[in-house]
Amino acid sequence: MKGKFITFEGSEGSGKSTQAKLLCRYLKEQHKKVLHIREPGGVILSEMIRKMLLDVKNKTMTKECEMLLYMAARAQLVEEIIAPALRKGIIVVCDRFLDSTVAYQGYGCGMDIALIKSVGRFVTRGINPDLTFLLDVGAKKGLQRAGKFKDRIESRSLGYHNRVRQGYLAIARREPNRVKLIETKGTKSDTQEEIRRFVSRLLNP
Amino acid sequence: MKGKFITFEGSEGSGKSTQAKLLCRYLKEQHKKVLHIREPGGVILSEMIRKMLLDVKNKTMTKECEMLLYMAARAQLVEEIIAPALRKGIIVVCDRFLDSTVAYQGYGCGMDIALIKSVGRFVTRGINPDLTFLLDVGAKKGLQRAGKFKDRIESRSLGYHNRVRQGYLAIARREPNRVKLIETKGTKSDTQEEIRRFVSRLLNP
Repeated sequence: MKGKFITFEGSEGSGKSTQAKLLCRYLKEQHKKVLHIREPGGVILSEMIRKMLLDVKNKTMTKECEMLLYMAARAQLVEEIIAPALRKGIIVVCDRFLDSTVAYQGYGCGMDIALIKSVGRFVTRGINPDLTFLLDVGAKKGLQRAGKFKDRIESRSLGYHNRVRQGYLAIARREPNRVKLIETKGTKSDTQEEIRRFVSRLLNP
Repeated sequence: MKGKFITFEGSEGSGKSTQAKLLCRYLKEQHKKVLHIREPGGVILSEMIRKMLLDVKNKTMTKECEMLLYMAARAQLVEEIIAPALRKGIIVVCDRFLDSTVAYQGYGCGMDIALIKSVGRFVTRGINPDLTFLLDVGAKKGLQRAGKFKDRIESRSLGYHNRVRQGYLAIARREPNRVKLIETKGTKSDTQEEIRRFVSRLLNP
């Protein structure tokens, strides 16, 4: 793959989307070819799945169904968008990827992480992020930042969101070369500066 | 599980739904508690997934996404409907189940059958049909019977539907105790009579 694949991970309200947007804008200013997408979503079919996943009305959704829907949306996005873009040499920046399923459905819902990873290998077809930013924020503070209108996942308990955060931290500890733990205590531009340093090292090794 | 789980499988136009309906009517006349459902579908969430799967507009759907959507719909149906009904001692009759994914996505689309079975074990949580009727019909004849307005799966080539049929026959050869191969050459009531004989043996062993 000629391109680079950069993902942003973190709990609700960690500032992932903002930081991803700032990074894409910066890379475009550097005349890089960049594609910014989000998960679940990014293509029509996956956005349809996203709607089902986040709709608070879908109260009865089982955790197995939920995990498989995330994976279905990911499979579609990988084949339709991510793989072709990487083949063309584009830098793909994605809000959330497989680590989210490990953190939210694995650590958060208590599903078998080995199974999630095995289904994950199947849907990502060997495409792994070159670099992942884990934007860390306390679960309570993050949920406050996420605002009043919460989707189906955001509506879950503080205990759930704490488990998700601990899961993310465990992922970062296990794969320190790929996953960069970014504290979000400074200003937005402090955080962005730290992110850009890692991206520069990836692009100019 | 106190109940019994009976599934109907077969290519398009094999008469699955008709035979399942006739069986359910017969069992109700015998004062049995019966639940007739279909796959993908059977509950609100799974019917939403069904719509995506069968909509001819969803031309770009990858085979990985397709397989995972079938599994997601199944996971929801098993937990919300099938498992509780079987626990209550109800006879659950289902149009299509895991064998369909093995036949259509495995044999038909050429996906890894071991992987399909492994995801299948996860979503069915050990719930396997006690009895499966495979209604066999030639692919060409079946497609003609299925009519003019074809869904996304029915619209596939004759070659595809031939592979599906061969897949079904392989499943029946491998598990002759569970899967009963039913020729559909006779009248509807001939076929139904054959089916009832197997069901009687299951219910009165």
